[in-house]
Amino acid sequence: MIGTCRMADISHLGVLAAKGFRAGAVSCGLKRGRKLDLGLIAADSPAAAAAVFTKNSFASPAVHWSRRVARRGKAQAIVVNAGNANACTGKRGYSDARRMAELAAKLTRARPGHVFVASTGIIGHPLDMAKVRDGIEHAAQELGTGRVAAGRISRAIMTTDKRPKAAAARCKVGGVPVVVGGIAKGSGMISPDMATMLCFLTTDAAIKPKPLAQALERAVGASFNRITVDGDSSTNDTVAIMASGAAGNKPIAGAGPREYAAFERLLCEVTQTLALDIVRDGEGATKLIRVNVSRAASKKAAERVARTIANSPLVKTAIYGGDPNWGRIICAVGYSGVPVDTNRVRLKIGGITVFERGSAKRVRQSALKRAVQRNDVTISVELGTGSAGVSVWTCDLSHEYVTINSQYHT
Amino acid sequence: MIGTCRMADISHLGVLAAKGFRAGAVSCGLKRGRKLDLGLIAADSPAAAAAVFTKNSFASPAVHWSRRVARRGKAQAIVVNAGNANACTGKRGYSDARRMAELAAKLTRARPGHVFVASTGIIGHPLDMAKVRDGIEHAAQELGTGRVAAGRISRAIMTTDKRPKAAAARCKVGGVPVVVGGIAKGSGMISPDMATMLCFLTTDAAIKPKPLAQALERAVGASFNRITVDGDSSTNDTVAIMASGAAGNKPIAGAGPREYAAFERLLCEVTQTLALDIVRDGEGATKLIRVNVSRAASKKAAERVARTIANSPLVKTAIYGGDPNWGRIICAVGYSGVPVDTNRVRLKIGGITVFERGSAKRVRQSALKRAVQRNDVTISVELGTGSAGVSVWTCDLSHEYVTINSQYHT
Repeated sequence: MIGTCRMADISHLGVLAAKGFRAGAVSCGLKRGRKLDLGLIAADSPAAAAAVFTKNSFASPAVHWSRRVARRGKAQAIVVNAGNANACTGKRGYSDARRMAELAAKLTRARPGHVFVASTGIIGHPLDMAKVRDGIEHAAQELGTGRVAAGRISRAIMTTDKRPKAAAARCKVGGVPVVVGGIAKGSGMISPDMATMLCFLTTDAAIKPKPLAQALERAVGASFNRITVDGDSSTNDTVAIMASGAAGNKPIAGAGPREYAAFERLLCEVTQTLALDIVRDGEGATKLIRVNVSRAASKKAAERVARTIANSPLVKTAIYGGDPNWGRIICAVGYSGVPVDTNRVRLKIGGITVFERGSAKRVRQSALKRAVQRNDVTISVELGTGSAGVSVWTCDLSHEYVTINSQYHT
Repeated sequence: MIGTCRMADISHLGVLAAKGFRAGAVSCGLKRGRKLDLGLIAADSPAAAAAVFTKNSFASPAVHWSRRVARRGKAQAIVVNAGNANACTGKRGYSDARRMAELAAKLTRARPGHVFVASTGIIGHPLDMAKVRDGIEHAAQELGTGRVAAGRISRAIMTTDKRPKAAAARCKVGGVPVVVGGIAKGSGMISPDMATMLCFLTTDAAIKPKPLAQALERAVGASFNRITVDGDSSTNDTVAIMASGAAGNKPIAGAGPREYAAFERLLCEVTQTLALDIVRDGEGATKLIRVNVSRAASKKAAERVARTIANSPLVKTAIYGGDPNWGRIICAVGYSGVPVDTNRVRLKIGGITVFERGSAKRVRQSALKRAVQRNDVTISVELGTGSAGVSVWTCDLSHEYVTINSQYHT
């Protein structure tokens, strides 16, 4: 699927790998200990833009604002803060989000309607706008390119993440080298429909807003919507992209041509890399768990079974402990709500068949145990009722997850 | 709702509180360390019977066998083992379950078709039938009444439970004192449709199988189906009841008369007591969490919101840490999939309103913190879209939950 793309050498540049963008990040005091908590990404001129957002009913005012920006298909800047989600903050929350856009617009010579706003952090507390205002002003002074600026912006969006997440890839689109790059934050509350995660992408491809939106929708479907950490979906999730056109390719005007396909693959590669990084860095995660469900009657059925397994605390704690207690996986298949013929179901862990034709298969326990104790565990379920399949990626549930989440507020 | 029932003095007698039953429990070696792991409950003569089972597609052969017993409406014994769930064991599993019924039947002079079979423990391992056979024989020799036998049978069904769970209550039905008593085990995998939990109930009421089944269905709906520990539903859940008729009341023949209503209330009282005991003793639980959802458009909507909150790892870890991070509750309401008008939602924690009319309410943080740090935390959500309501009980998610479940198998 990845084809001829290359990512190795430019990944660390994240949102600054593509031509036509600058970024600045500062500490404005929303997080403790002078950590970076406010960032600005600016395009040199108005760019084609698209975005995908949380479906949570209590979406943050920042999401409401940014939805309107996305609808216009154009953006020139992204302003983001971490440490406070600006969610459940009523009318004040909305005017704060608008104020952030206006300030960022003024300082980047953009129109307020061309500025995406994103916030992440605790819910239910009004933003300290004096700090945010100062932060935006300083971030605008810091706008620059290169690895230092790229590293700072990727750290400024972190909350409980342990590591910044950046990726970039390059490939030829219509004979011209095109770059897509991005940064992401995840950690807790990662689930279907993109829980508390932010991802900002930039590209120098020339592409119209409509095919850009379609490519983003698909790339998110094949990456961020495939991961789950704890089944919670947040109020603030945002994936936004700006396309500067600086690569000079013939503009991609629709989803038909080969050039579109090449661009979509490139974008997918970057979002999948970031999505897997998010799972690997899930709150307290020690292992990546890949759940593959195949031979299902429908994609929907496969999805439901996969997510039931991936969200089962009993499965996740067993994998954490390196315990090959596969009965819990079978049990999750059984209560997923998808009708199954128990005699047709086959379960493999790390390629070893442990259950088929209605009963446990004799396996070398030592081999099975080794498979479960790896850092990267694959669970494969064949339902035997059709030909649809799906993959979902999750992480284990550890003591550290509980520690992080029982002490977040205080 | 509880009316004139009394339970204090006879609760510890559990399944032996009602007249007409004996119980025996032994250690046969399925659990380590000579713990009690096999039990037998016998009625003096064939009793009216009913049962409710898991809906998991991978239901244990014991469940398949017992479903047929329940369909007949008559039973004289219950044979149960802990330490091995006899699930995912194929044809051999079914013949083992039948063999357990046959052995128990022979020793209690019952018909095999009148013997409920239940198993709980690890999935995917065939039963050691030599041990089970010895166990059933010894348990039959131990059959007796009184507090020692009652205590032993309640411990014999435990797996990761810390405490045995027994309850009994008495009230007048048609002028005659009638007793309902029972034992239960729960702990992990507790969820809608009765996850790995077993509950055995006895009564000396004279009641026909049909109204008995209806009363049981309702009592389970108002108790075990209201609790959730981790969202997982097991392969082995069974709630079974036998009615000896020894109380001498005029037999309850249908669900119409006042006597039926009195019996149903009595049964509900016992099952609710056992259900709350299960949640309080949830794996690693340190707190009981009551989630009340009201003013919903439908019961189904209320249920969905309540379960989304009750199963959210982020909510459960926050409560564990005594952290009044109510944004996570609002967030769970928002991603429950139930359409909500965010301006109409009101959220209270321990009676303190923290969110209404779309934004956070100013509250004394110290009072809120106290409310969350209690052993018994109530979360109330008014949706403001109708008049339906529901309550769900759950527990917090602690470090100990992870410890228990990451090391279960080995």
